[in-house]
Amino acid sequence: MIKVGIVGGTGYTGVELLRLLATHPEVELTAITSRKEDGLPVADMYPSLRGRVALSFSAPEKARLNECDVVFFATPHGVAMAQAPALLDAGIKVIDLAADFRLQDTAVFEQWYGMPHACPSLLAEAVYGLPEVNRAAIAKARLIGLPGCYPTSMQLGYAPLLAGATPLVNEASLIADCKSGVSGAGRKAEVGSLMAEASDNFKAYGVKGHRHLPETVQGLQAISGRPVGLTFVPHLVPMIRGIHSTLYAQILPEASNTDFQALYEQHFAGERFVDVMPAGSHPETRSVRASNMLRIAVHRPGNGNLLVILVVEDNLVKGAAGQGVQCMNIMFGLDESLGLMHVPVMP
Amino acid sequence: MIKVGIVGGTGYTGVELLRLLATHPEVELTAITSRKEDGLPVADMYPSLRGRVALSFSAPEKARLNECDVVFFATPHGVAMAQAPALLDAGIKVIDLAADFRLQDTAVFEQWYGMPHACPSLLAEAVYGLPEVNRAAIAKARLIGLPGCYPTSMQLGYAPLLAGATPLVNEASLIADCKSGVSGAGRKAEVGSLMAEASDNFKAYGVKGHRHLPETVQGLQAISGRPVGLTFVPHLVPMIRGIHSTLYAQILPEASNTDFQALYEQHFAGERFVDVMPAGSHPETRSVRASNMLRIAVHRPGNGNLLVILVVEDNLVKGAAGQGVQCMNIMFGLDESLGLMHVPVMP
Amino acid sequence: MIKVGIVGGTGYTGVELLRLLATHPEVELTAITSRKEDGLPVADMYPSLRGRVALSFSAPEKARLNECDVVFFATPHGVAMAQAPALLDAGIKVIDLAADFRLQDTAVFEQWYGMPHACPSLLAEAVYGLPEVNRAAIAKARLIGLPGCYPTSMQLGYAPLLAGATPLVNEASLIADCKSGVSGAGRKAEVGSLMAEASDNFKAYGVKGHRHLPETVQGLQAISGRPVGLTFVPHLVPMIRGIHSTLYAQILPEASNTDFQALYEQHFAGERFVDVMPAGSHPETRSVRASNMLRIAVHRPGNGNLLVILVVEDNLVKGAAGQGVQCMNIMFGLDESLGLMHVPVMP
Amino acid sequence: MIKVGIVGGTGYTGVELLRLLATHPEVELTAITSRKEDGLPVADMYPSLRGRVALSFSAPEKARLNECDVVFFATPHGVAMAQAPALLDAGIKVIDLAADFRLQDTAVFEQWYGMPHACPSLLAEAVYGLPEVNRAAIAKARLIGLPGCYPTSMQLGYAPLLAGATPLVNEASLIADCKSGVSGAGRKAEVGSLMAEASDNFKAYGVKGHRHLPETVQGLQAISGRPVGLTFVPHLVPMIRGIHSTLYAQILPEASNTDFQALYEQHFAGERFVDVMPAGSHPETRSVRASNMLRIAVHRPGNGNLLVILVVEDNLVKGAAGQGVQCMNIMFGLDESLGLMHVPVMP
Repeated sequence: MIKVGIVGGTGYTGVELLRLLATHPEVELTAITSRKEDGLPVADMYPSLRGRVALSFSAPEKARLNECDVVFFATPHGVAMAQAPALLDAGIKVIDLAADFRLQDTAVFEQWYGMPHACPSLLAEAVYGLPEVNRAAIAKARLIGLPGCYPTSMQLGYAPLLAGATPLVNEASLIADCKSGVSGAGRKAEVGSLMAEASDNFKAYGVKGHRHLPETVQGLQAISGRPVGLTFVPHLVPMIRGIHSTLYAQILPEASNTDFQALYEQHFAGERFVDVMPAGSHPETRSVRASNMLRIAVHRPGNGNLLVILVVEDNLVKGAAGQGVQCMNIMFGLDESLGLMHVPVMP
Repeated sequence: MIKVGIVGGTGYTGVELLRLLATHPEVELTAITSRKEDGLPVADMYPSLRGRVALSFSAPEKARLNECDVVFFATPHGVAMAQAPALLDAGIKVIDLAADFRLQDTAVFEQWYGMPHACPSLLAEAVYGLPEVNRAAIAKARLIGLPGCYPTSMQLGYAPLLAGATPLVNEASLIADCKSGVSGAGRKAEVGSLMAEASDNFKAYGVKGHRHLPETVQGLQAISGRPVGLTFVPHLVPMIRGIHSTLYAQILPEASNTDFQALYEQHFAGERFVDVMPAGSHPETRSVRASNMLRIAVHRPGNGNLLVILVVEDNLVKGAAGQGVQCMNIMFGLDESLGLMHVPVMP
Repeated sequence: MIKVGIVGGTGYTGVELLRLLATHPEVELTAITSRKEDGLPVADMYPSLRGRVALSFSAPEKARLNECDVVFFATPHGVAMAQAPALLDAGIKVIDLAADFRLQDTAVFEQWYGMPHACPSLLAEAVYGLPEVNRAAIAKARLIGLPGCYPTSMQLGYAPLLAGATPLVNEASLIADCKSGVSGAGRKAEVGSLMAEASDNFKAYGVKGHRHLPETVQGLQAISGRPVGLTFVPHLVPMIRGIHSTLYAQILPEASNTDFQALYEQHFAGERFVDVMPAGSHPETRSVRASNMLRIAVHRPGNGNLLVILVVEDNLVKGAAGQGVQCMNIMFGLDESLGLMHVPVMP
Repeated sequence: MIKVGIVGGTGYTGVELLRLLATHPEVELTAITSRKEDGLPVADMYPSLRGRVALSFSAPEKARLNECDVVFFATPHGVAMAQAPALLDAGIKVIDLAADFRLQDTAVFEQWYGMPHACPSLLAEAVYGLPEVNRAAIAKARLIGLPGCYPTSMQLGYAPLLAGATPLVNEASLIADCKSGVSGAGRKAEVGSLMAEASDNFKAYGVKGHRHLPETVQGLQAISGRPVGLTFVPHLVPMIRGIHSTLYAQILPEASNTDFQALYEQHFAGERFVDVMPAGSHPETRSVRASNMLRIAVHRPGNGNLLVILVVEDNLVKGAAGQGVQCMNIMFGLDESLGLMHVPVMP
């Protein structure tokens, strides 16, 4: 049994980790920290876990993190980079759901997150936790920076187009029009996230610039090995879970005869958590609700020179906690899908 | 033109007042206060008002409240009772949308609101702003305590049963099972009101006791002139606006032959904002959305001894701002429906 | 492995059965029928099942129902009673999710469902599939009529009050104010169930009379052994899944000293799928979303003579498909919770 | 007073016309037709209109359409073109909310709508009812084809870019990523529009081709006088009303110094129903809910070569019924905003 600790388990990615780990056959939940809720049974805060999770929150200094084999950080940005070094020194693997270990360039990190990086020396070692791209490195890693929710959908959606030796699309002018449910904003008390504000409403936000842009560009460039230009426009959808990314790419004249459907199917052949749907499909976010699956459909309207890629995922599962468990399974040599085969909840 | 001031216009009842008053033909919006937003154009906070409301928020000490004919308080409990005396002394009428002037008994006020009452001497003068019950007193009032949203629906729903000289129902054991949209909680940043918490969910709350209970009992007793016992169970509905109250009353044996449908129709004959629907109807909250109308349907299942009264209102209009404007119209001798004839928005 | 067939798998209870059975360790999905969708892979209609359910719909006459050990009917009322006799004769157990085998009195059935009963002779044998009340009979049954969604919540909510030798509450005047999400209406194309009609809205319906009333009264009388009078008012909540029943009961003077919290805890001690919450709790429907759990809280406002019982369940799981699987587990001697330990999905 | 008739008033655009016309100071509602609902008071179908609209539905042959000054068609495609000629011959103006008179090319009409055009001779006379583009022609028209909901947002969003003598953007490769609330699908009983299907969900649809594509291209070409290429991807948002169009355009090198914010502000200066928001704004659909306003924000992320235009409208008002009333006002020489100055409903 893998002994698992969670730092910061009071937010949505924390409780989602608990949902997934509570039924994982090889996991023993060992510690969960919250300074504010020290002593409170987890199930008192989240009645959905009554009878399923017996742990109580502990203040960080009391938590038995040192007994763990792996510690997940489901904390605000900046926490993991402060605590990871000591855990790693103690031989404990670390998986960060926040942004501390996503960006390789500390200047970029500091520009977008507004804080100095506490342990830049670990960045070279940190592995970006996107299994479909980085599986081998994840298997050997002791420190994982998990992708953001939007970046997961954009990178997997564009990967087959960019992975080849020669460009198929105009990589300088990709456009990602992305839509997320409200749980992506986390469990923070903010007026803009109130139901009376966010329901029966739709809006774009962060058009000027969003933290997931540099992360995604870094990832896309790692896939292609070439410079990539991306315009990323996020929108807020009045639903709880789910991301739908509508990705646009201009087909290069020399690639016009490509069978893009076949390209996607071959690229993801054998992947347990990526489903390339039949040509002409329109994936719905609910088709992956509460599951670790990501679905993709490839369109080429009017057989023209613009590709339209539709990608759906559950932002809390494949976009966060589920991907973390997937990485953990790989790191510990388990079947990658262990504890992650939930059938999506529909309706 | 009536010069109107609003104290505390940043919440939902405040912006709803602005929506209604912006098109009221006899109103000139003169001042709106907010210490925190001093100098901010109202339409910058609420883009729905762009081009329609030119005012900016002013800090209270700068606001031209003294030039107003009437001032609405759309503030947290406790603000109006501190400021009302000076305004009244200056000859300005006051309409409080909060609870400061609802309860006649200061001990009850202090028990439920946890603060001493700042001007108990004004309570005797304050008029409870429920026009269908108190119209004559409102017309002469200079200080109005507007009913809460739930109490409006409960009192108007029970009024025809209680208003007679002899009891028709067991007045000692009324049951009100009420359901409210999330805007009833106001525009406060609280975790429980987040869309990710409140949508796709339903729950009761405050079963042990809710502030609207003593207010409603006081109102029902004023209508009947007899002691009334009420159990009130509020619930939170995943919608923005609307209250649906399901009211239960046991018919007394001696009243068993009463034609309750006729009783309701006669009681509310001539009322502009109360609609007694045909027997057998199920009023929907959306049938009054964004309007000052309240609709009622009377049921007697199986022709038994239990009456079931269904009441719907828009909590922000008939349950708050609209009722305030209705009172203002009465106080200033205008047609009671002036500026309030919005057709409900459907769908 | 238990070979399972499903008749009528295109509705919400059908797809929910598929979700649950697809991961049940002792089940082999063998046949699923739909005349209209004959030949269509189930996963083409429900992409959430892609890669998880390989079956295609078959026309009834082609389906391999005779090879099954048990057949679930997730069909409109009237289908199961026509087909059950032949299956039973072939030694196949039958679990009906519709109403054909719920009511013991055919006259009552015919009054409420508007059709003659096709096999009244089977009614005496049919067992009402509410495990917490009827576990022993279910274990020996070959024909199960599963309770309706509302009746499950009302019967389990009232059971501890009624099960004793002497009455604790006024059993002649129970009031159940119940609220259901829209999936309760099924996957039928009806204007009233459109999102533009049902969202951002709340209403009561069927106040005059609802089919779940006679079923619940029959069940409550079976529990108490005494006549029971019930007023049942259903409401439609703008959410997908979930039922919240608010149950009222007048405490008899001689029962006034009862510790109702303890009564409920003792009554349901050992039950895997009934959770009596701590005194003062307000269970939310989302705390059981997509799980087979039912949660109950007991309130006695002001320590008066009215009990208020709050009950939540997922109408598609404990209110339908999950309860069906629970019965199947009991009928086949398996652990009652096998395949049913999904952690509720929150948020 | 203008005598107004409505053909087909049972759908969402019909009831929205009724909401707007019921308070229009220069309109007398004279006739409303529905074969199916002949004799039914309109307010029985739509309780929101109780006390506000006294008309009953009439079968078409009984309706007093010939007494009207103008007739609105809120019908399925194909109805208006069959009935318009006789009305026009009788001197009655016609405003069609469906697609019969939108497309100038009958071959295109027949390709996308699958029916022959019944009166192609009227197409040359029909005026496309987009006041901000076609005001002068509308003033003289007796037959109006109202724009679709999506096309209104796309054309007004792109108009300032295309209206100049020389191109500013690459007009051959515009991309419109549009999102609509569910009322856009109308009040038809279809499974895909059920609340249990469409809520808490997000998807694209019609990526292969949508009827609003040829209409929009025709309109954009009329504005620019040059060929236009457009990719249009519609999505379904789980909300009732509202369209949010995210429009992309590549700035031509020679136009790189353009002040696009100023361009938009100047283009729409003086327009009552188009609001160009301050630079950097993110308009929300709720900021125009239930009003005839359309709001636009102009973005140029990173000061690069891609423009991102955000457009919001209420699909039932500016996207349908409100625009129809706006055209009627123009046609009858009234103030263009008469009866259309509703303040948006927020929250």
